Amino acid sequence: MSLLEQIRFNEAGLVPAIAQDATSGRVLMMAWMNEEAVRQTLHTGFAHYYSRSRQAQWKKGESSGHVQKVLDIFLDCDGDTLLLKIEQTGPACHTNRASCFYRHLEGGDWLIVEDPLK
Amino acid sequence: MSLLEQIRFNEAGLVPAIAQDATSGRVLMMAWMNEEAVRQTLHTGFAHYYSRSRQAQWKKGESSGHVQKVLDIFLDCDGDTLLLKIEQTGPACHTNRASCFYRHLEGGDWLIVEDPLK
Repeated sequence: MSLLEQIRFNEAGLVPAIAQDATSGRVLMMAWMNEEAVRQTLHTGFAHYYSRSRQAQWKKGESSGHVQKVLDIFLDCDGDTLLLKIEQTGPACHTNRASCFYRHLEGGDWLIVEDPLK
Repeated sequence: MSLLEQIRFNEAGLVPAIAQDATSGRVLMMAWMNEEAVRQTLHTGFAHYYSRSRQAQWKKGESSGHVQKVLDIFLDCDGDTLLLKIEQTGPACHTNRASCFYRHLEGGDWLIVEDPLK
């Protein structure tokens, strides 16, 4: 069975992919991949995702330069989630923060705990 | 705006939640929450998820005892993914492994890199 056949894409043909900084262990973002995005990621060694809003595949950092070199890929027990170990160039988040998870729950609200890079 | 209103649940009323070991930084699993699972997680301090196959909310570890104490919760920039910092009791995976991500890509196939606990 090919490696792609073991990935359980959902009814929309997508699989969630968690990007984690390979060095710090920080979770950077979660995005979706279609089969073509997985292929392009494997082929190029850089993370490609599928934008559900734009309905198109994209290379992460293609316009910003904030690319993600993929050092390792893990598949979970159910085969329906990927975990990418990443070497991130620049901030991962489009808000110019290192991680998209820059708000945490405190005092009953989502508190921003990380400022954008200058 | 309440903290729940800032979470963008999908068309099925669910949001993906990534569970990460708070100490080691290891990503343990990804599961889904509905609004009630988020409420129960906040209310009890232990992770609750929503099973899409069983169409029911469940407390992680309710039968196995492998519960997840939630130390911190992050929300991503789009508001559509949660990241939980977890203190895990026992293995997180139903296969008796510490993490559900126990297979990685090597030589064109998914290679198991972690054995189940005895």
